[in-house]
Amino acid sequence: MADINSHIEIGVTTGPIRGSRKVHVGKLNVAMREIDLEPSSGEPPLRVYDTSGPYTDPAAQIDISAGLPALRREWQLARGDVEEYDPRDVKPEDNGQLGPDRSGGVPAFPTALRKPLRAKAGGNISQMHYAKRGIVTPEMEYVALRENIGREIARENLIRDGQDWGAAIPDHVTPEFVRDEVARGRAIIPSNVNHPECEPMAIGRNFLVKVNANIGNSAVASDVASEVDKMVWSIRWGADTVMDLSTGRNIHDTREWIIRNSPVPIGTVPIYQALEKVGGVAEDLTWEIFRDTLIEQAEQGVDYFTIHAGVRLAYVPLAAKRVTGIVSRGGSIMAKWCLSHHKESFLYEHFDEITEICKAYDIAYSLGDGLRPGSIADANDEAQFAELYTLGELTKKAWAQDVQVMIEGPGHVPMHKIKENMDKQLEACGEAPFYTLGPLVTDIAPGYDHITSGIGAAQIGWYGTAMLCYVTPKEHLGLPDRDDVKVGVVTYKLAAHAADLAKGHPAAKLRDDALSRARFEFRWRDQFNLSLDPDTAEQYHDQTLPAEGAKTAHFCSMCGPKFCSMQISQEVREFAAKQNQGSDEFIAATETQKDAEQGMEEMAEKFREGGDLYVPAKD
Amino acid sequence: MADINSHIEIGVTTGPIRGSRKVHVGKLNVAMREIDLEPSSGEPPLRVYDTSGPYTDPAAQIDISAGLPALRREWQLARGDVEEYDPRDVKPEDNGQLGPDRSGGVPAFPTALRKPLRAKAGGNISQMHYAKRGIVTPEMEYVALRENIGREIARENLIRDGQDWGAAIPDHVTPEFVRDEVARGRAIIPSNVNHPECEPMAIGRNFLVKVNANIGNSAVASDVASEVDKMVWSIRWGADTVMDLSTGRNIHDTREWIIRNSPVPIGTVPIYQALEKVGGVAEDLTWEIFRDTLIEQAEQGVDYFTIHAGVRLAYVPLAAKRVTGIVSRGGSIMAKWCLSHHKESFLYEHFDEITEICKAYDIAYSLGDGLRPGSIADANDEAQFAELYTLGELTKKAWAQDVQVMIEGPGHVPMHKIKENMDKQLEACGEAPFYTLGPLVTDIAPGYDHITSGIGAAQIGWYGTAMLCYVTPKEHLGLPDRDDVKVGVVTYKLAAHAADLAKGHPAAKLRDDALSRARFEFRWRDQFNLSLDPDTAEQYHDQTLPAEGAKTAHFCSMCGPKFCSMQISQEVREFAAKQNQGSDEFIAATETQKDAEQGMEEMAEKFREGGDLYVPAKD
Repeated sequence: MADINSHIEIGVTTGPIRGSRKVHVGKLNVAMREIDLEPSSGEPPLRVYDTSGPYTDPAAQIDISAGLPALRREWQLARGDVEEYDPRDVKPEDNGQLGPDRSGGVPAFPTALRKPLRAKAGGNISQMHYAKRGIVTPEMEYVALRENIGREIARENLIRDGQDWGAAIPDHVTPEFVRDEVARGRAIIPSNVNHPECEPMAIGRNFLVKVNANIGNSAVASDVASEVDKMVWSIRWGADTVMDLSTGRNIHDTREWIIRNSPVPIGTVPIYQALEKVGGVAEDLTWEIFRDTLIEQAEQGVDYFTIHAGVRLAYVPLAAKRVTGIVSRGGSIMAKWCLSHHKESFLYEHFDEITEICKAYDIAYSLGDGLRPGSIADANDEAQFAELYTLGELTKKAWAQDVQVMIEGPGHVPMHKIKENMDKQLEACGEAPFYTLGPLVTDIAPGYDHITSGIGAAQIGWYGTAMLCYVTPKEHLGLPDRDDVKVGVVTYKLAAHAADLAKGHPAAKLRDDALSRARFEFRWRDQFNLSLDPDTAEQYHDQTLPAEGAKTAHFCSMCGPKFCSMQISQEVREFAAKQNQGSDEFIAATETQKDAEQGMEEMAEKFREGGDLYVPAKD
Repeated sequence: MADINSHIEIGVTTGPIRGSRKVHVGKLNVAMREIDLEPSSGEPPLRVYDTSGPYTDPAAQIDISAGLPALRREWQLARGDVEEYDPRDVKPEDNGQLGPDRSGGVPAFPTALRKPLRAKAGGNISQMHYAKRGIVTPEMEYVALRENIGREIARENLIRDGQDWGAAIPDHVTPEFVRDEVARGRAIIPSNVNHPECEPMAIGRNFLVKVNANIGNSAVASDVASEVDKMVWSIRWGADTVMDLSTGRNIHDTREWIIRNSPVPIGTVPIYQALEKVGGVAEDLTWEIFRDTLIEQAEQGVDYFTIHAGVRLAYVPLAAKRVTGIVSRGGSIMAKWCLSHHKESFLYEHFDEITEICKAYDIAYSLGDGLRPGSIADANDEAQFAELYTLGELTKKAWAQDVQVMIEGPGHVPMHKIKENMDKQLEACGEAPFYTLGPLVTDIAPGYDHITSGIGAAQIGWYGTAMLCYVTPKEHLGLPDRDDVKVGVVTYKLAAHAADLAKGHPAAKLRDDALSRARFEFRWRDQFNLSLDPDTAEQYHDQTLPAEGAKTAHFCSMCGPKFCSMQISQEVREFAAKQNQGSDEFIAATETQKDAEQGMEEMAEKFREGGDLYVPAKD
């Protein structure tokens, strides 16, 4: 490839999240984030789950042209079950029919690529395969440490409070628990052997609810620099995995830049690239072209494949009578292929061969819901559930070869029909992790679909969905920009966290409590820093009260000093404490003294002595 | 009052909402909005509920200095049970201790005010009083017409689809149904006799879920022009009622401007103004000052009063041990008063006297939840439910005098504890309408609390809450500006609509279906116009594809032409239609022909003949 194409300016956001420090824990150096609190709080730093990778570590050397360090490489080689080999050649059509000089396209990733790895002939290197044989991998240990954050603290006074709808969330996560969940198929650790840069993470109902962010070029807009930037930006705000949904030109090279720089699993929908290779003509797709695309992406390091193998020929007419037909891109491509050839889907027919590829690289399936409802009218219909049961059948086929599986879910679903989706998925797919897009609970709010879908996502997450695919404000309208990506991720993080709380995750509440204490004690900076988006929180505060002194004021712009309920409430508490009485005694005293005017006056006097009512702002 | 103070520039947004026309229906001229669809749709205009008042009617003369027409005046006088009288004098302290020249303050409302009305001595003019005596008022007829929108159309093919948790939503709303709901206390029609500008609306579990927007000056920020503007702006986007939560100076005059220009009910928290009158010293509050404030606001036309009469002395210590104590302003003021005097709350003690005032003007109670939880940690605790049961007791006392009541609810509640709030409220308060703030389902997302609370609001609305009090992105951080008000209202409208859908409201789905059909048929303008916020939807679309031609393109920027699932899906549908086969026959054909290569090829051929695949954008 020509040198002239290697020059590209890619800027990404680096540096710590406000008020936080990167820490590394244990012999595996598991990355976590610590939020320091003001000394006046008397509280230790709060440790939180960290998806942001080395980008938030001031000690890390970031070089987008070189990619991230290969964290898992050593673990992989130590297992002795992989082989290096010469990859397939990158073909012009991999990048959208560009000529060999790639003119006008994205430059190839400039650092020499490692030779790809794969399982030795006939082998299986999936985490599920190890798990079923009782092997606890470093990946599983890494996951256990991450998932355990806060649980030691929570364990001291553990009161499990939640409704988990039949999940089995442990008080403490051990590596053995992770192994067992992966072996049962209830969790996956997406970890293509050719993506050693990835920090292991788990997707499963008994772990923290995860969030996926979609990025990617389209034929109409976008470029590689902004896609890499969006990837780094999305994980900064909490995306646990990223899907590269690029279509159009430069798909191969764009993906290389993204994977080499991603510390989170990368998912794709290989049919998109396959379709580009046949000039966008669905009926020209063949199993051979699709298979070659899978190998291409496997060698690059894609961690999970969305495969729409449940869109069977017989289901297509079920979707024809819908208000919005088939709204999944992959689903509609396959439906068209099936109809135009009047043949069963080649994805369905060749499923075991796809599984063979997955097991050689440890790629997880994300079985696509090609017939998901695209409107409230189509929710929970025959087409949708016919496909779901086929996905259940395919799950068992994949598991028979020890390949990891998650199941994609809707879509557009009114609230009263959400739980049925979860229940049917658990039943049909043997508790394989569910991975849903929203669902959107109404169709009437384009421009606000991060919210219509966040409502559904929080609920289905509570019911048991393991990963929530974000929706941005641009859904149905346009391609998300950087700001949309952030809003989408933060919205889904709060939905996922709300689900963790409601499920009764043992440590989820620690952060809520720390933030609420900060709020009650007017530690404004702590309140900002403990929030999901400290920058926005501080900016909003400063719009009304920009002065530095307002950050230590015992009131805010909402109520002003006289109406500050928090301030009054603190006085009430101090008074109660001075009385050295528990509530019961206080109530008893209150009742017995109800007519004893003198006693009342005495207590009132004590309260009035309590000191200054209003603490003036220092400005 | 001096003339020099009457000059004020108040600009509000007028003109139709994009793509819509104001229509007036029936002999009462009930205001509605019609959204016109493209002729190609072959669909009639979609009629939707309209809260925006005359401001969106190009035929209306808007003069903020004169106020709105007195729609209800005639109905009130026709009943023959009211009398005009000379109001109390406006006192300097009503506007925050300003001198009589009001210098530096808000000018008095410049148009001569009508003399106030009230019930003739000993009378009762509440809608509940009429309802219990079997009288169907014009207010009830107006409500029935509004609530019925779309039900005629829906009735043609009515399939009730929802989970209503024990509500009793009728297929068709008759004036008699409205009367019965008001008589039972299951719905209220807030309608102070001195707010004849108000277009009647109902709040109740068996009607559409409503949304309230809070506005108001604080001591720290805001002014009357921006508050009137926010009121008009909030109803444009769908606020069903508005609460004026002003504190600081100019409260009386600010409220006058707002009420005279408001076509929706206005609620207040009278204790805020009472506290201003005693210089912000809670312990100096007296029943006499409070009573005088109620009369003052009753004469101006406040439609519902938030009264924190459930914060009893004995409950205060229950809140002292909380993580965030008492977070309701009104609650903390009363707690402080109770503690400093060590006396039972004067609101509780004088409740029947407050009720006397309410019945003379038809002011509805909004019984305040002064002890609502302000954090996840405090949700559903003893303090909260102790107060709720007292609110239930007070509800029965108010109903004994035929005064309308709704009950305020939390606050911060994790998802698994939301339903308990609704269930307990229904039980404790005899199905009086519930009116909740959110609830927020996590504490960790300041800056996004319209979303954390929208998630809880949609759920509790589904469970039966009658009105949702909006939360803006600035919650916990600052005062909402105009943009925040809009985002808050739209977020809550979509949450309320999601609740209506899930409850199985007979006509709610019409708008979703119309929008989804528009989406599927690439009628972009219809999609924008049918959405809750057409301006934002179009703006987001245009950010990626600004060309006019893109508005008629059969694809969008998300997928581009080759990946447009909607387009492919249409082809699939056309093919299915050509086969003139039902799904069952198609499936049968598919299965029997599975091995008949020739037959397959025949069907495939037909599909390929289907015509052009991609419709190019006209630009």
